[in-house]
Amino acid sequence: MGREPVDFSLWLQERVEHIEGVLEQVLPSAETVPEGLHHAMRYAVLGGGKRVRAALVYAAGEASLQTGSEASAQRIALDHAAAAVELIHAYSLVHDDLPCMDDDALRRGRPTVHVKFNEATAMLAGDALQPLAFELLGLMPIAPALTVQATQLLARSAGSLGMVGGQAIDCGSVGHALTGDQLQQMHRMKTGALLEASVLLGGIVAGASSATRAGLESYAGAIGLAFQVVDDILDVTSDTATLGKTAGKDAAENKPTYVSIMGLDGSRDLLRSLCDQAHSALLPLGPSAAHLAGIANYIVDRDR
Amino acid sequence: MGREPVDFSLWLQERVEHIEGVLEQVLPSAETVPEGLHHAMRYAVLGGGKRVRAALVYAAGEASLQTGSEASAQRIALDHAAAAVELIHAYSLVHDDLPCMDDDALRRGRPTVHVKFNEATAMLAGDALQPLAFELLGLMPIAPALTVQATQLLARSAGSLGMVGGQAIDCGSVGHALTGDQLQQMHRMKTGALLEASVLLGGIVAGASSATRAGLESYAGAIGLAFQVVDDILDVTSDTATLGKTAGKDAAENKPTYVSIMGLDGSRDLLRSLCDQAHSALLPLGPSAAHLAGIANYIVDRDR
Repeated sequence: MGREPVDFSLWLQERVEHIEGVLEQVLPSAETVPEGLHHAMRYAVLGGGKRVRAALVYAAGEASLQTGSEASAQRIALDHAAAAVELIHAYSLVHDDLPCMDDDALRRGRPTVHVKFNEATAMLAGDALQPLAFELLGLMPIAPALTVQATQLLARSAGSLGMVGGQAIDCGSVGHALTGDQLQQMHRMKTGALLEASVLLGGIVAGASSATRAGLESYAGAIGLAFQVVDDILDVTSDTATLGKTAGKDAAENKPTYVSIMGLDGSRDLLRSLCDQAHSALLPLGPSAAHLAGIANYIVDRDR
Repeated sequence: MGREPVDFSLWLQERVEHIEGVLEQVLPSAETVPEGLHHAMRYAVLGGGKRVRAALVYAAGEASLQTGSEASAQRIALDHAAAAVELIHAYSLVHDDLPCMDDDALRRGRPTVHVKFNEATAMLAGDALQPLAFELLGLMPIAPALTVQATQLLARSAGSLGMVGGQAIDCGSVGHALTGDQLQQMHRMKTGALLEASVLLGGIVAGASSATRAGLESYAGAIGLAFQVVDDILDVTSDTATLGKTAGKDAAENKPTYVSIMGLDGSRDLLRSLCDQAHSALLPLGPSAAHLAGIANYIVDRDR
């Protein structure tokens, strides 16, 4: 965490604790019928995770707020949007860990949902987290036209031309050679789409001008890719205890990664240029984009 | 199909063909990357199914249309809503057929998606059909406030307090004794929630008055349950070739059903009273509700 100023770390920590409280509240209690399903949904979502997507929603919201707008309604709306992207992310991890996909037993240092419960419950928990995300967007106290825009964006980023499409390409690529372009396309969909959506959702909810939205899009594209490049580097350079998930898995499965295609040094060079692109895109937004800049550094410098 | 007048049969056939064309168009082509995923999504949705949910959207729309409203915009909106509920239904069947759930090899007389493709593709196809449904609702050319209402309704009906919650109770109930009330609660969630949402979506999109909405709700509650009672009866009285799915499966797995709890005669009595309730609820809506009445009879009289 070398490059992060102290105030960013404090801000991020405060946001992570805040979104945890929001998620606690929006998830049905473990005493609500069907109890087992709700228990699994809460286990999948709460008590872990870096909450990068939620932080992006909040930071993009800060960078986009118009003076004179209804601050308290927008704060609530940002909470809903941040919770929605975290729910989509959490559901994708639950399904990704299932035996028919990555068959992973460890996530965030704990047993995965299908190991802790069972496969059927894990699948259903993921299936139920997804509509809850759309329900939360519908509860945002903002202009309905903005809610519709936000719903469209989240739906597209989560679908077959976004996150799930990227996962399908990833599944189909095991043991196959991908070109650098194909790998980039896959990651733009698999990880980039939802990270980008998080940034843009913050902008939409806070009523960003079209100039601000353009800056957010360029920033989001860069950090979306950077995130995956770091993941690939960490899979090679880190260990299971630090990652909280199985290290070295990509190489063991002969999965194409940035490191396998462009080497460790090439991957680090790409990472630096993506980080520069992200910071340049934020310049026109001025000082209110400071936390977005902090998240870019955080993504690049993280060790898990 | 004894009680259906000819004009209802023609109307239903025309609507089934129409929604098939709409679904053809809203699903990404099988040539769109990732091709395998899109092929599986199209296989899961197209070329089969009774399209009861789509028909309910259209019939409820007819029963709710205000004179002087923008007819062409509402026709497009009803198409989107009808496609959305069919996509949610199709995804639920794909996931329900997976080995970790019902482990069924046959659906609509064809191999299930995981048999035709593989488990990972079936799971991802289901995962991608769900956000496509919400995306379609967002594209309805109606007042954004109505779109938000429709999104909320669909999200709730598909979630842990609706369809997926019902499936979770169903999974947990195999080999356990359920009371009649518990069975009813399970079915209200598992099958009833989405059937009810279909009726109410048609009403919302077409700008139904609150009196009309009340009638639609009562009708929807009755046919939602009736649908499942018929399913349970057919599982006992029909054969695999007629059903297009494995007959006698519930009894073989010791699953609680209406027939196992109240017997075949008791189930048929319940069915008759639900059908009466549905027709009574439609009386205040007048002749524009004729196709809703036809669907109630169709649900009760179907043989697959």
